[in-house]
Amino acid sequence: MIIELISIGDELLIGQVVNTNAAWMAEELNRNGFRVHQMTVVADTREHILKGLEEAGNRADLVLVTGGLGPTKDDITKLTLCEFFRTKLIFNEDAFRDIETLFARRGYAVTELNRKQAELPEACISLPNRMGTARGMWLEKERGTKEKEKESGIPHPASGTFIFLPGVPFELKDMFTREVLPRLRERFTPGTVYHKTILTQGIGESFLAEILREWEDRLPANIRLAYLPQPGIVRLRLTATGSHDDHPEELVSAEAEKLRRLIPDLIFGYDDDTLEGVTGQLLKEMGKTLSVAESCTGGYLSHLITSVPGSSEYFKGSVVAYDNRVKEKFLHVTSEALEQHGAVSEQVVKEMALGIRKKFHTDYAVATSGIAGPSGGTPEKPVGTAWIAVASPTGILANHYLFGDNRERNIRRTALQALNLLRNLIRSFTPLGNT
Amino acid sequence: MIIELISIGDELLIGQVVNTNAAWMAEELNRNGFRVHQMTVVADTREHILKGLEEAGNRADLVLVTGGLGPTKDDITKLTLCEFFRTKLIFNEDAFRDIETLFARRGYAVTELNRKQAELPEACISLPNRMGTARGMWLEKERGTKEKEKESGIPHPASGTFIFLPGVPFELKDMFTREVLPRLRERFTPGTVYHKTILTQGIGESFLAEILREWEDRLPANIRLAYLPQPGIVRLRLTATGSHDDHPEELVSAEAEKLRRLIPDLIFGYDDDTLEGVTGQLLKEMGKTLSVAESCTGGYLSHLITSVPGSSEYFKGSVVAYDNRVKEKFLHVTSEALEQHGAVSEQVVKEMALGIRKKFHTDYAVATSGIAGPSGGTPEKPVGTAWIAVASPTGILANHYLFGDNRERNIRRTALQALNLLRNLIRSFTPLGNT
Repeated sequence: MIIELISIGDELLIGQVVNTNAAWMAEELNRNGFRVHQMTVVADTREHILKGLEEAGNRADLVLVTGGLGPTKDDITKLTLCEFFRTKLIFNEDAFRDIETLFARRGYAVTELNRKQAELPEACISLPNRMGTARGMWLEKERGTKEKEKESGIPHPASGTFIFLPGVPFELKDMFTREVLPRLRERFTPGTVYHKTILTQGIGESFLAEILREWEDRLPANIRLAYLPQPGIVRLRLTATGSHDDHPEELVSAEAEKLRRLIPDLIFGYDDDTLEGVTGQLLKEMGKTLSVAESCTGGYLSHLITSVPGSSEYFKGSVVAYDNRVKEKFLHVTSEALEQHGAVSEQVVKEMALGIRKKFHTDYAVATSGIAGPSGGTPEKPVGTAWIAVASPTGILANHYLFGDNRERNIRRTALQALNLLRNLIRSFTPLGNT
Repeated sequence: MIIELISIGDELLIGQVVNTNAAWMAEELNRNGFRVHQMTVVADTREHILKGLEEAGNRADLVLVTGGLGPTKDDITKLTLCEFFRTKLIFNEDAFRDIETLFARRGYAVTELNRKQAELPEACISLPNRMGTARGMWLEKERGTKEKEKESGIPHPASGTFIFLPGVPFELKDMFTREVLPRLRERFTPGTVYHKTILTQGIGESFLAEILREWEDRLPANIRLAYLPQPGIVRLRLTATGSHDDHPEELVSAEAEKLRRLIPDLIFGYDDDTLEGVTGQLLKEMGKTLSVAESCTGGYLSHLITSVPGSSEYFKGSVVAYDNRVKEKFLHVTSEALEQHGAVSEQVVKEMALGIRKKFHTDYAVATSGIAGPSGGTPEKPVGTAWIAVASPTGILANHYLFGDNRERNIRRTALQALNLLRNLIRSFTPLGNT
């Protein structure tokens, strides 16, 4: 079964609004075993809407259309779809009563524009809107014959089920969930699709692909792998399709488990997990505390940690030591280390971590020092150089990294790498059964 | 001239990723006088890519395609477009050297997958990628004849200019800005459109609209106003259309000047300015230094400040004092203030600002304390409450705010408000001619 989404709206075509509606619907459909084959954005003129419906109807069995409804703009959409479906607008009493009720509740008077919103195509099943004034519309289009095409002037035998929904996100979501999804499940037989996303940190896409090539080559035929890279993180999405008897969920879990054994230190979580979230959870479970000393990450590492609700349970605070005198005076970094090795060095980053851990009385401490760029690089320490140290109750470790030449990404990659270094160090102290 | 965008990627069709690339490109094109007529998302299989190119080529003069490139997936895209453009892949020495240079700088060895990325369609103009390994490709397709169609099996006479770009947002943005836009402006004639965006902080969209209503009603007919709200910031975009003789740039500048007089403290900059950038610039020009004490913003304020290249010239550092003992011990907040007024209070936030200013020996200091949420609120101090203090060489001020119930947005709005408070305080000490 082929499904397409159409979004109507100039605000999307000038980039003023990002098409979150399409992403939301696609995810909902996908979770329910339906697959979206194409998404299209068209302008809200008669010609573009007609052409969009026609072309989608030629390719797809089901077309979901959002936008183009609402008091100031639904005239053109509704007249256009009457033309496409060869039907006409009639006044719908139920729809009008709903609008009156909604307005009475808000203390507004019904306008002429709102009255026109109760006019709906005769051939449609109308879908109630609990959140606004524009009803949804469900229409069926029969496959046209060559003669009918000639007669109507519509050149293609577009056919299938078309559902029109409002573009306001909360109206769309409510209507889709309550009115559309249950009817789709009844009318069409959804396939079984199962996804699991494995989240990795610490290695780039192409190197990860090298490591995983053998495993990837042996994946079962009905499981697909997708690499989804972000700065500092690569997500691996496994998708299994098939009938219930194929047990796609079990197949995917088995492959995820193989991956976990292959790259245990790189995998920090699954699906909606975040590195700051899982690291915080580990600290919370173990009743341990954390402090941070930042140089090149300039507060971003602390920000990631404190973006997790409840992080005050384990995070005590940090010092952002941008100036070397701050490093000396408040983190007790020695002037010898600074003079002999420079601020971006193993010695200094270790002293920073030990200094903040002692001052803030925490179990763990993380420190970063690097050259984020664009300036400040030298041949020995180019832009992108970073040192990260983690101090624990039993010792300290420091690693050296060389990231790229983009300031923003260097900051982000250093912070994520620091979190994963901390996470792996904490895990190495937990009973093995938990890893 | 008809322009269409195609995005390739299953991650878009299952709703895992929102199509921000299309919105960003549409906005850039629009700002430069080009109009996007349609956006399409297709799956990354040969059939879908071929059909998408074909259909777009039938409708449009220029097709911009993003995604489907990258070390693990560009095989299928590049082979498919060789088929579509009737050309073949050849090894590109320049592209390979760029990949080698990029990898050498990062200290990595080039893999076989990366080597394959240097294979490009013979017929293309390749576009350098400063941010990654996948080059962009610019291809022209001649209008096919009926005979050629029959011969090739490709049914439609799709033609026009096709540009293929990587889907990773920062690679796309850099390549589009540097390589694509200048060539488009040279090759095609954009309409005359002039935009200026006025950046405001400190007031919500609907209240701002009330203040600006009279001014908005009197805007010249060829100037349009758009409100572009973001958390903590409202951007006002003025767009003038018309011929050169209408002097759209002068018209827009005159309206921007009227606005500046209407809401001087709310406007912090124009177009690509950032609040952290203009505030840093002020400090630099005046040779003044800054330190920060953060509670509820948890490092985000420091991150904003240090995201500006060269910020180490004026920013000395900060203390993130999540724990009250850190506030007492390292910022010398008195236990009386904490006990009598609580951590989120005028007294404490002032003591934090004075404490960090003295400790870090800076001219200015900013402090934040609030309840970011989701928990921790009380009837007197609900979630969203924030206190911000700014200490200067001549005194201190503290303001109280009530933001919303979303943790992430509360953190961002508090940090931006703190920067604007600092900016306005610094400006009040500068010679009036500069404001």
